[in-house]
Amino acid sequence: MATLSSLQSRIDQIDGFLVESVKDVCSTMLSWTATEAPGGLTDPAAFQLGAVSGCIGFAGGMTGSIFLSCSDALAEAMARTILGGGGVPHPQDVSDVVAELTNMLAGGCKSRLCDQECPVVMSIPNIIRGQAIRAFSRDITFMLKREFSLSISGGEKLQVIILGKFD
Amino acid sequence: MATLSSLQSRIDQIDGFLVESVKDVCSTMLSWTATEAPGGLTDPAAFQLGAVSGCIGFAGGMTGSIFLSCSDALAEAMARTILGGGGVPHPQDVSDVVAELTNMLAGGCKSRLCDQECPVVMSIPNIIRGQAIRAFSRDITFMLKREFSLSISGGEKLQVIILGKFD
Repeated sequence: MATLSSLQSRIDQIDGFLVESVKDVCSTMLSWTATEAPGGLTDPAAFQLGAVSGCIGFAGGMTGSIFLSCSDALAEAMARTILGGGGVPHPQDVSDVVAELTNMLAGGCKSRLCDQECPVVMSIPNIIRGQAIRAFSRDITFMLKREFSLSISGGEKLQVIILGKFD
Repeated sequence: MATLSSLQSRIDQIDGFLVESVKDVCSTMLSWTATEAPGGLTDPAAFQLGAVSGCIGFAGGMTGSIFLSCSDALAEAMARTILGGGGVPHPQDVSDVVAELTNMLAGGCKSRLCDQECPVVMSIPNIIRGQAIRAFSRDITFMLKREFSLSISGGEKLQVIILGKFD
């Protein structure tokens, strides 16, 4: 029971870090307010990715991955907001912006984990683009999945998934 | 020049580790002979993934990722070879087998890097499934892409990509 409740409290903590980090990154980089939908912990299982996703691996006190995932339309809106200009941004610029946001999000979680004596290192962002993509991770003890509404028109949602296991 | 040639020799070394590790994993796990096509170093750019890909992140002396990627048919053949049985294996079993092979491949590269004083840690495998998926990584200094022919009928190729930067 002690182990289970300690795992639960670490998962609650990382859920809080995820929500804080998403809000921080949206506010700092996009001047958008992000509001989390109820949810969080879910059973580890295959999950659907949006058309544009960033992914970064963690190792150390927590080994796993974080995904930031959204539609093409939302990824383009983020690129326009950060890079300026109108129209449809170049796909490479869109990938760069999603990579940078994923990097900041992972960095936010990393520094919060390190502050709480769960030191982790992170890899670099990979961007995955396509339709109807499914992702899956094996041997994980937790999976947190959060959807965020954003203070822009269009009602597009940002999806963030963090999954892994503790050392 | 010294820095450039030292980078080149590290990239040549990691290319050798990749080829050795793929051959080892195919031989040990599948009793297949893998033969590399000419190639290796390529300009960092977006790249196409097959229908089933495993991906693991590295951090440490080398920060980056490794992808093992193939068609549905080859992923199913690998699952049948490892798990036994005929017919079409369950998609979850196929994902598990590709995750395990990616883990062994990344582990082979990791131990060879650590032996050569380039200590790295690795995250856990993510499996990405879908059609016409493109991937991209930013801020990398090298990208190695290798195709392997396999000693099974069908002519299916295994694709392995390793990309990143050195500390």
